[in-house]
Amino acid sequence: MPRMLVLGGMAAGMSAASKVRRLDPRWETTVLDAGPDRSYGACGLPYVVGGITPDLGDLFALDPEEIARRGIEVRLRQRAVSLEEGRKRVVVEDLPSGRRSEEPYDALLISTGSRAVLPDLRGLEGENLFCMHDLGDGRRLQAFLADTRPRTALVWGSGYIGVEMAENLAARGVSVTLINRSERVLKTLVEPLKARVVEELESRGVRVLLGVQVLEALRTGGRILGLRTDRGELYADLILAATGVRPATDFLEGSPVPRDGRGAILVDETCATGVHAVWAAGDCCAVRHLLTGRPAYLPLGTTANKMGRVAGANIAGRRERFPGVVGTAVTRAFGLEVGLTGLSPAEAASAGFDPVEAVVEAGSRAGYYPGGGAVTVHLTADRRTGRLLGGQVAGPEGTKGRVDTLAAAVTAGMKAEDFALLDLAYAPPFAPVWDPLLVAAGLLVSRLKG
Amino acid sequence: MPRMLVLGGMAAGMSAASKVRRLDPRWETTVLDAGPDRSYGACGLPYVVGGITPDLGDLFALDPEEIARRGIEVRLRQRAVSLEEGRKRVVVEDLPSGRRSEEPYDALLISTGSRAVLPDLRGLEGENLFCMHDLGDGRRLQAFLADTRPRTALVWGSGYIGVEMAENLAARGVSVTLINRSERVLKTLVEPLKARVVEELESRGVRVLLGVQVLEALRTGGRILGLRTDRGELYADLILAATGVRPATDFLEGSPVPRDGRGAILVDETCATGVHAVWAAGDCCAVRHLLTGRPAYLPLGTTANKMGRVAGANIAGRRERFPGVVGTAVTRAFGLEVGLTGLSPAEAASAGFDPVEAVVEAGSRAGYYPGGGAVTVHLTADRRTGRLLGGQVAGPEGTKGRVDTLAAAVTAGMKAEDFALLDLAYAPPFAPVWDPLLVAAGLLVSRLKG
Repeated sequence: MPRMLVLGGMAAGMSAASKVRRLDPRWETTVLDAGPDRSYGACGLPYVVGGITPDLGDLFALDPEEIARRGIEVRLRQRAVSLEEGRKRVVVEDLPSGRRSEEPYDALLISTGSRAVLPDLRGLEGENLFCMHDLGDGRRLQAFLADTRPRTALVWGSGYIGVEMAENLAARGVSVTLINRSERVLKTLVEPLKARVVEELESRGVRVLLGVQVLEALRTGGRILGLRTDRGELYADLILAATGVRPATDFLEGSPVPRDGRGAILVDETCATGVHAVWAAGDCCAVRHLLTGRPAYLPLGTTANKMGRVAGANIAGRRERFPGVVGTAVTRAFGLEVGLTGLSPAEAASAGFDPVEAVVEAGSRAGYYPGGGAVTVHLTADRRTGRLLGGQVAGPEGTKGRVDTLAAAVTAGMKAEDFALLDLAYAPPFAPVWDPLLVAAGLLVSRLKG
Repeated sequence: MPRMLVLGGMAAGMSAASKVRRLDPRWETTVLDAGPDRSYGACGLPYVVGGITPDLGDLFALDPEEIARRGIEVRLRQRAVSLEEGRKRVVVEDLPSGRRSEEPYDALLISTGSRAVLPDLRGLEGENLFCMHDLGDGRRLQAFLADTRPRTALVWGSGYIGVEMAENLAARGVSVTLINRSERVLKTLVEPLKARVVEELESRGVRVLLGVQVLEALRTGGRILGLRTDRGELYADLILAATGVRPATDFLEGSPVPRDGRGAILVDETCATGVHAVWAAGDCCAVRHLLTGRPAYLPLGTTANKMGRVAGANIAGRRERFPGVVGTAVTRAFGLEVGLTGLSPAEAASAGFDPVEAVVEAGSRAGYYPGGGAVTVHLTADRRTGRLLGGQVAGPEGTKGRVDTLAAAVTAGMKAEDFALLDLAYAPPFAPVWDPLLVAAGLLVSRLKG
């Protein structure tokens, strides 16, 4: 009976294990996870904090009974220490006891995910400092909120988690200041859309400070009082650091498993690492960006699920492929839905394209249909080929759908001029007769010609 | 100074006239319309009836001042009688006076739209019989509702207008029975989605009777009392006939402008009719279906706008093309958003494809994120090529976006297996980690392999 060993029991790992068992039940599948919890939807953590999702337990993806029914053995608090690929073994530490043992495999899937990275700042630790990366972070923050009822929070980092936490802490009645070292909001968001996000945050009472250099953590006892910055001292009852993640692959140091400079595992379209019998999937991996053709680090739950499934299929002997991503993402900042796909103009330029861009604002519904509001659409195309390279959308509704439409077009290599005449769905409650996407594409086409 | 004559001043006509004037202001543009109203959004009529849009006047697309500013002359109540293409003239009747005159042109755009078709049934006329096709219909129905406060309505026809009118008459407190000759709802909707629409209508108190043969109009004085059908006599204070439309092209009888059997004008990609200096656009035209390659009659406001713009560009000497449509549509039946694009399995089969289909139900949001509900997705692909041919979506939210995503993929000729791994936007408020579209595509791929 062949044995599949899975390191990391979140989205990618459980998808792969489930797929292998479904395709070929002869496989013995053992999932080891360093954490104390079985698979859950980490993307929901901010919404539990905000009280939208009632309980952290709601985030669990699979019941223990369902895991057992699939014939998957899950062992928690098991940390991978090193890979001995020649002997097809992983050295594993049982965290409660500290004991080490060797786990043999016929196929190994590395799906150890990512870990939160704190800024490199002395004194940045304390009972009121939080990340929002795993269920343990959620538990600790929920207890802190209930016990100490903080009135003020500093959210450090204006990426997706930072913006979502700003909203959800505000929903708990906490007065939030959002700070970020760079001027960026939601990573590659272009200026007009960034302005809308900042405006929305500020209109809901979140103070937004961008381009802030943090100089020192101000401390007292076991707590952080605040941060001294180049914009003055910022005090808060609670510090939430949402300053990025890194692939959790340190245990591969010295192994032949290929990784990029950040530590993200490099895999081919079948999720194979090139090391015999070793696959990898999920947030510990780089993924191929379909527009640049290069590996990119874009850790996301959807991608992890897809990679896990494809890795599982290949481990079970099927030939399936995961071609890559176009960098699609969406989130909500209070009443504003914002998302993007493909390349921003800056990313396009650095990938060797000649970017042409267009931005428009148009209604989310027919003018005479009440509700909705202005949708801002920014599109990027390549001047030489006319190909649509990316798009960003911000508006009160329909953003995911518009971003997905762009994602399909960008993935298919559609030209801007073909996109501009696309047969999109129209009805007064859902769009104007010229959808904002088509208005933007029309302007883009005239820019491409001009 | 060259003269552009436009027959029909709705979406296509006004788009074309505006485009010509924008590209080349030397053109004198005269728009003649048989109706009493300048351009308006006819798709909004049901929502004015329902009271969502406050006033019929809200539907007007352009102010007279804006029309004048664009340098377009609009003359109302002018009916085209015949085309004398050899002399480049149109015989026009001034409806108020009955006087006829000849209007010369250097370029002619036919954009006369469509007209409502009533079932061929004796006695089907009366003060309580309505269509919902133009602003006049809306005015007459609004007055009738205000004056007589009808308690019951028969909506005849279960296409888009019929379903929208059922909802909006119900919103006015009218008890609605929806009947249709065939068993179909929303034209090509497949069974599981049709069932959801019927269920939604019935749950909101609309009685739905499909496959009903109407035998006779029951009359008294100037009113219709009801309809005698093979399912019994159906009485109502108000009869709304939403039984289809036909191209308004009778005046072309005997002219060389090519039309299909239904009277829809056949145009090429530049909206030219093949008759010298004669273009056509909008609901009076057939359009090329991009999947079948054949002309289809799919009159829609979005298409009319696009064709009008392309026709205008070509009239002004630019070479632009309107490639065609994939049959995308969306509407709302009370709380259910339903839409479709591409070919249904039956349409695919009759177009020579070998259709494979899959249908799934999945959540519209992450399972732990409250709200939303079940989304039903039905997809069709071609067994030989694996190409995605069409999709239908019904759910409480996000339907337009999902249909548009499918429309982009179908238009691009994407294969089902590529669609199944598409990088769609994910965040808990907007989708589960596997979007319903991806779940459906995954099942479709396994069917294609099986």
